[in-house]
Amino acid sequence: MNIQPKSGTIVPETVTTGPLTGSKKVYYTVPGHPDVQVPYREISVTDPKEAPVRVYDASGPYTETDIAVDLAKGLKRIRSPWLARRANLAAYAGRAVKPEDNGDVSPEKLVPPCPAITAPLMGGAGHVTQYEFARAGIITEEMIYAAHRENLCREAMLAEAHDKLADGESFGAEIPAFVTPEFVRDEIARGRAIIPANINHPELEPMVIGRNFLVKVNANIGNSAVTSSMAEEVEKLVWSIRWGADTVMDLSTGRNIHNIRDWIMRNSPVPIGTVPIYQALEKVDGDPITLTWEVFRDTLIEQAEQGVDYFTIHAGVRLAYVPLTAKRTTGIVSRGGSIMARWCLAHHQESFLYTHFDEICDIMRKYDVSFSLGDGLRPGSIADANDAAQFAELETLGELTKRAWEKGCQVMIEGPGHVPMHKIKINMEKQLKECHEAPFYTLGPLTTDIAPGYDHITSGIGAAMIGWFGCAMLCYVTPKEHLGLPDRDDVKVGVITYRIAAHAADLAKGHPAAQVRDDALSRARFDFRWEDQFNLGLDPDTARCYHDETLPKDAHKVAHFCSMCGPKFCSMKISQDLRAEAAVIAEREKGMAEKSAEFLKSGGELYVKS
Amino acid sequence: MNIQPKSGTIVPETVTTGPLTGSKKVYYTVPGHPDVQVPYREISVTDPKEAPVRVYDASGPYTETDIAVDLAKGLKRIRSPWLARRANLAAYAGRAVKPEDNGDVSPEKLVPPCPAITAPLMGGAGHVTQYEFARAGIITEEMIYAAHRENLCREAMLAEAHDKLADGESFGAEIPAFVTPEFVRDEIARGRAIIPANINHPELEPMVIGRNFLVKVNANIGNSAVTSSMAEEVEKLVWSIRWGADTVMDLSTGRNIHNIRDWIMRNSPVPIGTVPIYQALEKVDGDPITLTWEVFRDTLIEQAEQGVDYFTIHAGVRLAYVPLTAKRTTGIVSRGGSIMARWCLAHHQESFLYTHFDEICDIMRKYDVSFSLGDGLRPGSIADANDAAQFAELETLGELTKRAWEKGCQVMIEGPGHVPMHKIKINMEKQLKECHEAPFYTLGPLTTDIAPGYDHITSGIGAAMIGWFGCAMLCYVTPKEHLGLPDRDDVKVGVITYRIAAHAADLAKGHPAAQVRDDALSRARFDFRWEDQFNLGLDPDTARCYHDETLPKDAHKVAHFCSMCGPKFCSMKISQDLRAEAAVIAEREKGMAEKSAEFLKSGGELYVKS
Repeated sequence: MNIQPKSGTIVPETVTTGPLTGSKKVYYTVPGHPDVQVPYREISVTDPKEAPVRVYDASGPYTETDIAVDLAKGLKRIRSPWLARRANLAAYAGRAVKPEDNGDVSPEKLVPPCPAITAPLMGGAGHVTQYEFARAGIITEEMIYAAHRENLCREAMLAEAHDKLADGESFGAEIPAFVTPEFVRDEIARGRAIIPANINHPELEPMVIGRNFLVKVNANIGNSAVTSSMAEEVEKLVWSIRWGADTVMDLSTGRNIHNIRDWIMRNSPVPIGTVPIYQALEKVDGDPITLTWEVFRDTLIEQAEQGVDYFTIHAGVRLAYVPLTAKRTTGIVSRGGSIMARWCLAHHQESFLYTHFDEICDIMRKYDVSFSLGDGLRPGSIADANDAAQFAELETLGELTKRAWEKGCQVMIEGPGHVPMHKIKINMEKQLKECHEAPFYTLGPLTTDIAPGYDHITSGIGAAMIGWFGCAMLCYVTPKEHLGLPDRDDVKVGVITYRIAAHAADLAKGHPAAQVRDDALSRARFDFRWEDQFNLGLDPDTARCYHDETLPKDAHKVAHFCSMCGPKFCSMKISQDLRAEAAVIAEREKGMAEKSAEFLKSGGELYVKS
Repeated sequence: MNIQPKSGTIVPETVTTGPLTGSKKVYYTVPGHPDVQVPYREISVTDPKEAPVRVYDASGPYTETDIAVDLAKGLKRIRSPWLARRANLAAYAGRAVKPEDNGDVSPEKLVPPCPAITAPLMGGAGHVTQYEFARAGIITEEMIYAAHRENLCREAMLAEAHDKLADGESFGAEIPAFVTPEFVRDEIARGRAIIPANINHPELEPMVIGRNFLVKVNANIGNSAVTSSMAEEVEKLVWSIRWGADTVMDLSTGRNIHNIRDWIMRNSPVPIGTVPIYQALEKVDGDPITLTWEVFRDTLIEQAEQGVDYFTIHAGVRLAYVPLTAKRTTGIVSRGGSIMARWCLAHHQESFLYTHFDEICDIMRKYDVSFSLGDGLRPGSIADANDAAQFAELETLGELTKRAWEKGCQVMIEGPGHVPMHKIKINMEKQLKECHEAPFYTLGPLTTDIAPGYDHITSGIGAAMIGWFGCAMLCYVTPKEHLGLPDRDDVKVGVITYRIAAHAADLAKGHPAAQVRDDALSRARFDFRWEDQFNLGLDPDTARCYHDETLPKDAHKVAHFCSMCGPKFCSMKISQDLRAEAAVIAEREKGMAEKSAEFLKSGGELYVKS
């Protein structure tokens, strides 16, 4: 998938930097770990009685106040000292870049290699993956980092408002009051969480994906047909994480994808995922039937050396399942799934992804590339939801999960797709059961097919629900889904829609710190602190812009009304006046507030006119 | 609430007319009832093997092909012959318009009265309301109309695909396979449905609101501070119903509201709702404390004579409940609720809405104005959801429901507001129990407070869920909620978001005809019939526009790919090719498709490479 620059906008010379309005970046150094500095965002509020609100922040150094970006140099390699302490990781020459890696692009159109590239690392015997460390009972720096990252708001919340925390419905998730590195380790060891963190991605700010952590959001990006600058490609990443994407999948195809991927990896603070079969297909000129294990294997190594953190592998598309899709309304809608299905049918044998699965594990383990087991047979329409093909593949993904764990790999599972609301919960339940609680990572699901142009909304509904039910990460959908290439505005709307879904899910699960931000914003709203209301929101700029369309003056930012109802009809204003009055009356009629419920139970005669 | 014209757009001289792209308006004459002609919209498709898709249509005559609109004349009075057959309805002089009805506007700024006004009708003894007819076992023309309107797509669906219909989860709703006038009558008689249909609104195309019917959507409109034309005000209504609003609430305040309301009523094919306390407050110069029963009573009669179909009445705000809101994060956020709470506290007595409730019923019965019992104490933040104040009021609304039924009135119940996902279902369950299954009509609910500028989405999630659980009508929220006045684009986005929510709910409830449109669109998608995909969607223009941003040529409208993935990576294309192949193989290996599940259960060895 590509992102088009908004028509009429200027192609960036560099990338978007600087804090979100009203926010600043803060780093917290974990006691005893001077090289583990965890980022968060602090939103200031104008009321001196209110504390600033700390929120989870995946935007990387780009949102620091005075960041100087040098894309050629790449981001600071915060993990390098950690990795350096692991004796079984060794640098080596690495695979030579081949012309087909960049789609045989002509020399004059070749995007230059990123100067920040260094020799890749490869893991040897011993513990390489986070899963292996966790199983051995060892806590890594990545686990410490991810634990504190999840926690940053939670301590304050626990101190202030513990009574509010317990009323979620988590459907069996085991969300702790406080996330410790030990908890992260244990979740990873049980296969219930992953930290996608290729040893060749030292720039990564580690994060954890799992049902007992905050719900995460993925955004997809891809190269443009005509690449005007490397900055333009990196900007797609930076723009996505600015608005809240926790991971980014690079779904580029075509020319220059190897070199562009290097620029992206070296400048990405978030895990990058890819679908290696896309590049493999390019290498055989787009004909699925001519794909081979050798081409695919070579592509895996190529991308693993670059530092890709997770691979979508469609190994669950088994030959016998393909005919199950024959009577579907929309056949196979996963690109990877359709490629593999075509290969299976043409060769009339199981795909090389399935037959070479153990070798794939061995490669991915050496770099700690996490599996994202692809749902190649996901439904592409309401009519096809939860059908035999989809669930047959899910069972195979469960089998492959166990095999990958045995090989020491981290695993998450991809899910649908298009599913009406009443069929969503069974997807989550079946995934937990069949895939042994490995994290679920779904696309939407879209809850109806009838709104092209609004599929961020049709899917945002399903995403919020499946996130509540236990899905660990939600892959965003933009308004352009099914129609065309998302531009910058589409990406932003898609990410924010999915942040809404993820946060609504966190609230409903009863996540300990989730409601802090809602409460702070609601207090600001009730107090007519307009600037605080804007800044505490997911998109301060849009909120301010909407407000200013009708009330642009600075004085209106403290006005005790807005243009919706005007001063006379402002319920908040009346309610504020009322509160003062009610307090007086409540005092006068001592105990009235407490006893009103009682009065009402007994008929409430005190206040009923006879 | 007002709607601002989009900055830079031209203020309409008339209203938007003509069919939606790819659609035409069709009327169905009910056999035996020549003056009951039910509208629907037929979406054409380019594949001759496919039938056109018929959809429910609330847009009125404005979407006819060659409609000539004369706002001064008003719409055709389709109900007049029906009403003329009811001997107990008598025309009378009606209340004289007073200067304060129009906010004491100066003569030069007075909007002229609508020439289409006629003498109002009032009901006498016997059956006046749909509830009274239903209780007496009588089927009205309104019931026949509404029944056939609900059904129009269902016959085809039942004939074609009955096996697909049964898999919804309706949480105890009793949705029939086919809606008959008798069923509508019985639902109204049980209080489980209403047909808001003031006898002074003969232009109305009747529709039914209830848990066992399609989920409906309400849009709010309001006058502009400076009214440049009556057409501009009527256009807000026409624009809302064009995109799918089933009812419209006119929340106008200030000058000219009486005369503008006449223009709206005479040109509205959908039920119009109001909150009479707003106008009453205007008449006492905006001071809630000086409100009196007499002013309110006069306003009820004024609006009932104009033809308003339902009134929001905040009679559940009892004196004893007001202190329950004192410790809330956001106090009282309902305008009507805050006005009444202020009155109650100032006078230290129950509100006149509560004490004069029987008289209110008597007035509303005479015109068949339906009650929309207001939730004056609805929560305005996640923190306040499902609290004692909210649920105390809900219990009172249940008591009032019974009283209104005893008086012969139709009743629905308004609901929240701001509610996190895990607290939504209990709202629906409690409403059904406390209010004796009277239809529920909710605003959202918003599932998080942290996204000002995107509250159509935060609330669309909650709306879809509560619609699924049994809510009969969803009041839309626009992106400008909490921030300012919605413009035309905001209204359209709000309505379409809520149509998505309502349709997702219908699908999940297992509504018999709901999936017809999803399936037709998905088949068009799989067949690369781009024009059909656009036209079958809720917003053909936006879908086409998004597609054309990257692939503008006509040839691309039949291209077997889109710009998202390009031709090489199009899964649908591969899947289509695959389907042909799979069919051949399936034939060759007779029974393979059927037996594949069985093979897999027994280990699937047939296709596993050893």
